Parts: sequence; structure tokens; C-alpha cells
Amino acid sequence: MRSTCCWSGCVTADRRPAIAYQGEAGAYSEEAVHGYFGAGAVACPAPTFSAVCAAVESGEAVAAVLPVENSLAGTVGEALDAIARSGLIVVGEVLLPIRHQLLGVAGASMDSVRSVMSHRQALAQCEAFLARRGWRLVVAEDTAGAARALAQRPDRAMAVIASSRAADHYGLRVLARDIEDADDNQTRFAVVARRDGASLSAAGPLAPGSGAPRATLIEFETRHMAGALHHALGAFAEAGVSMTRIESRPTGRVRWQYRFLVAVEGDAAVEPLRGALRELRARAHGVRVLGSFPAAT
Amino acid sequence: MRSTCCWSGCVTADRRPAIAYQGEAGAYSEEAVHGYFGAGAVACPAPTFSAVCAAVESGEAVAAVLPVENSLAGTVGEALDAIARSGLIVVGEVLLPIRHQLLGVAGASMDSVRSVMSHRQALAQCEAFLARRGWRLVVAEDTAGAARALAQRPDRAMAVIASSRAADHYGLRVLARDIEDADDNQTRFAVVARRDGASLSAAGPLAPGSGAPRATLIEFETRHMAGALHHALGAFAEAGVSMTRIESRPTGRVRWQYRFLVAVEGDAAVEPLRGALRELRARAHGVRVLGSFPAAT
Repeated sequence: MRSTCCWSGCVTADRRPAIAYQGEAGAYSEEAVHGYFGAGAVACPAPTFSAVCAAVESGEAVAAVLPVENSLAGTVGEALDAIARSGLIVVGEVLLPIRHQLLGVAGASMDSVRSVMSHRQALAQCEAFLARRGWRLVVAEDTAGAARALAQRPDRAMAVIASSRAADHYGLRVLARDIEDADDNQTRFAVVARRDGASLSAAGPLAPGSGAPRATLIEFETRHMAGALHHALGAFAEAGVSMTRIESRPTGRVRWQYRFLVAVEGDAAVEPLRGALRELRARAHGVRVLGSFPAAT
Repeated sequence: MRSTCCWSGCVTADRRPAIAYQGEAGAYSEEAVHGYFGAGAVACPAPTFSAVCAAVESGEAVAAVLPVENSLAGTVGEALDAIARSGLIVVGEVLLPIRHQLLGVAGASMDSVRSVMSHRQALAQCEAFLARRGWRLVVAEDTAGAARALAQRPDRAMAVIASSRAADHYGLRVLARDIEDADDNQTRFAVVARRDGASLSAAGPLAPGSGAPRATLIEFETRHMAGALHHALGAFAEAGVSMTRIESRPTGRVRWQYRFLVAVEGDAAVEPLRGALRELRARAHGVRVLGSFPAAT
């Protein structure tokens, strides 16, 4: 699906390297690019997580930033799968607080609004704010796309829920600020790069990391029998390695059979995780380290 | 978000009970309602998974059908969370083969098409078919919504990817049939009802089930320390209970802390699972059985 991607516009005249993200201008993912690589980074949109990874593999982008987990909604399996299917590794992560703004066109006010459009998850995360008003809710593919649509067809009776960045980008005004129900809404983004690392030197200094505790993302499969996963996870437990989360993901080969994606504390090249991985390889198959990186906190 | 739901139109004149689903007419979830409850069931759309569950809790619907897992894309965490947060239990499940059709308006043909609109996942699942043609891809919130939008604004240059049911519902014609890349694309839907069971007797006979192997969905939490999950899962392993999948889901209370959703073989009221659950309660907290039900195969 690369045909709809805008890479040709992504390399700037001064040859700053491009960082890929999924979505469109004004998306929270674009904000994560700047959160990690700095305000001067060139953030380049692509339509799908696979296209984002493909751009890094082909060298059109030096790195990419993908949402892998939200503190309220949980794992973004599709993004994790795109990373695991690619030849890329996770080299870092960044946490972005999600602050939803109610945006309208010039002349709109809280009194003129009759409908609110946004991504389903954003609507759900502002449920208490919206419930008091009885507006009609319109579901859109994403928050930035909703903002773009409103800017293209101005309507005082319509508001959108999106980021402050989307407001700036599409010239919309903020009708109500920080309208999310829970104030602990954060998204964790993985920063991925090519395994040879060559691409990253071109991206300039990576913001965080020095001295931060390391985290590692691991993929493996077990046989389909009682106790197989328990036996495999024993490799971590016996070495005292803390697991932060685990997901079953389709193998993609046999229907209703799974591989596991596990996030653990520690670095794959350092004990005790190094030894635990040696033991895991004896107990499971298809073991792959998808990256060891400084954990964002 | 109940305000946008259409329950008032859902109870038919002959008082057949309503079955709730998320989405709109022509959605794969609507097809799953009929797959489980029969062609005569009254399928009622609601905008969110929470609204779907709320309709069953309030008695406006006697049961609901929610997608919990796709064979290619994996778990639908948002739907599982809505079930876990509700007071409902899973009483059955149904598998639906997902067959994507390329739909156009009257007069459209493969030659007139320039753009294709659908849900992001549907576009991704037809990637090989689409790659040969170089059409512009437009992402929509869902497949049935894309079909409705095309029917409302007929355009021979636009096609959508949706179900045969959507074609029938919106009067679109099939330009290309079964265009998905993989032929093992299936979605697993959970059938949920109130715990008192009263609601289900009103729904008439439940289609499958007699003699089918039982499956059970369980939620629990562990302390955040090395080996805690391994120790908890030992309750199943030691009893010889097979686990089919496991997911970390946000607790919703403390950021980046998780509860676990586990699917196992067997019935919670029958050994060996019954004993394994007793042991699990000693090793973990917040243990809840979300339902034991006939597994769909």
C-alpha cells in the first residue's frame, strides 16, 4: 500500500533524515516523533503500520515511531505485528500523554455545537464530558483526519476531538481543553530502526536513554499442550527476570495457534536476562529478541 | 454514548427479542448474530462495545454478540474489556469466515474504479489483490459504513470492500468476489448474556453447543514481581489444563499495571479446571470466571 504514501515530500532541502509514523499530519504519532527526536525532526506519514516499517527497511526513513500500547486501551497488536514481521529492531521508546481537545471552526462555540466527530477510542475516553451534553457522536477513522475533514468543510455545528497539534495544523480553535475523563491516558511508542544501526547515526542524537533501566521485547512460540507456556515462562521466573506484559498473537500460519510477545526488564546481552534467553531457547522455538532499549519512564 | 443507539427501533411488532451488536447494518457482527441465533433474530446495532453490553444489562437486548478475536489480526482487547467490565457472562461463541467483496454502484466496473474505501484492516487483508491495481486507498471507520457512504453518494470511480450482506443491504453490486489474500480469515464472536440467565430463555434455543468441548474465559491479577505470573499459571499447568491464549490488559487503576485474560479448555464447574481455579485463587487475586461455554470449532 505504498502508493498512497507521501515519501517523496519527506526529505527536506537540508537533507534532514525522515522519521516515519502512521497516520496524517496532526496525529498523536507525529507528536511522538518530535517528543523523541526533537522539534526539528522531519516526521513523514504513511497509511499503515506495515508501510511505516517498509519505509525504514528501504532506507526512505531512518527510523519510525509506532504506538504499541495505551495505558487505558492496552496493546496495539497490529503495530507489534508489523514490527515483528519486519527485520527492524526496537531501539527506544517514548511515552506521550494523550490530551484531547474539543476543536471547532472560527465562529463556533460550545452553544453552536450539535455533533462531535472523532476516533472511536477518543470519543470513549471523553465519555463523561460528552454525556452531559447530548451531542450526536460521529465516528471517524482517526482524530487528525476528523480535524482535517472539519477544516475542509467548515461547520459551526460540528466539533472534533483531537490534539492541540491538530488544532494548530488545521487552523481550528479550542472550544474546551483537556476533556478526557482520566488524567492518566498515555501512549507508549516504540522507536524502530534497521538492525545494522547504520540508519540511526544519520538521525542524530537519540534523546533519552543514558542510564535508564533497559527493557527487552521478545517473541517465541511453544508447542500447543498443557503447561508448555508455563514451562517456557519458567526460564524468566527461575532467573529472577521480571515480565511486564505478555500477549498472544496469531502465528499467521495455523489458525488459532499463537506466538507470544513478552516484555521483560533487563538487556538481552546482560545477565540475568542473557542466561534466561539461553534457557528459553531450550524450552520454546522461534525465539527472537525484537530489541533491548532504554525504558521510558 | 447511548444517545446515538437505535434501540427504540429494535423490538419488533411480534416481540422477538433483540440481540445487540457493535456497528451498523451490513457489518460482519450483524452476520454473526444471525449465524448464532438464526436468520429470524432481530439484530440491533449500537455505537460502542460498552453500549452493546449496557443494552443487555438493562434488558433492552437479551444477548449480544461481540468480536473477541480474529485469526489474522488477533485479540479485540476493547471488546474483551467491555465484557469484563460488565456484569455479563459469555454463554457461547461463534466463528464467522470473513469474505471480503469488492463492491461498486450500478454502472461501475473494474475499469471505472480509481479509489477503494474500507476499514484499514480490510484493506490490509486484500493487499495482494489491491497491489496489482494501483488504486488510491481510502481508510474508513468500518466496512459497512464505507458501503453506506458509497450508496449515499454514488460514484463509479469508487469501490468499497465489505461483506455480501452489505452489498445486499445497500444495493451495491459485487465487482470482484472473495478478494482477501488469506483464505483462513475468521473472526471469533463471544455471545454474552446476563448472569441470571433469565434473558436467554427469551432468546429461544441457542444454536450450537450440545456435546461440544467446553471453554472458559478467566480474569485475574498478580503482584508485580518476577515469577508472579509464572506461579499463577502453574495452577493450570499442574492440573493439566490447556491454556489457549493469554493477554495483558490494563487494570484501569494503576498505569502500566495489568490484569490477565486467559482462555482455557474445560468447564469451570468440572475437574480438572474446577480444582485449578481453586488453586489459582490462592496464587492470584481478582480471579473472575467470565463464562464457561461450548467452544465453536
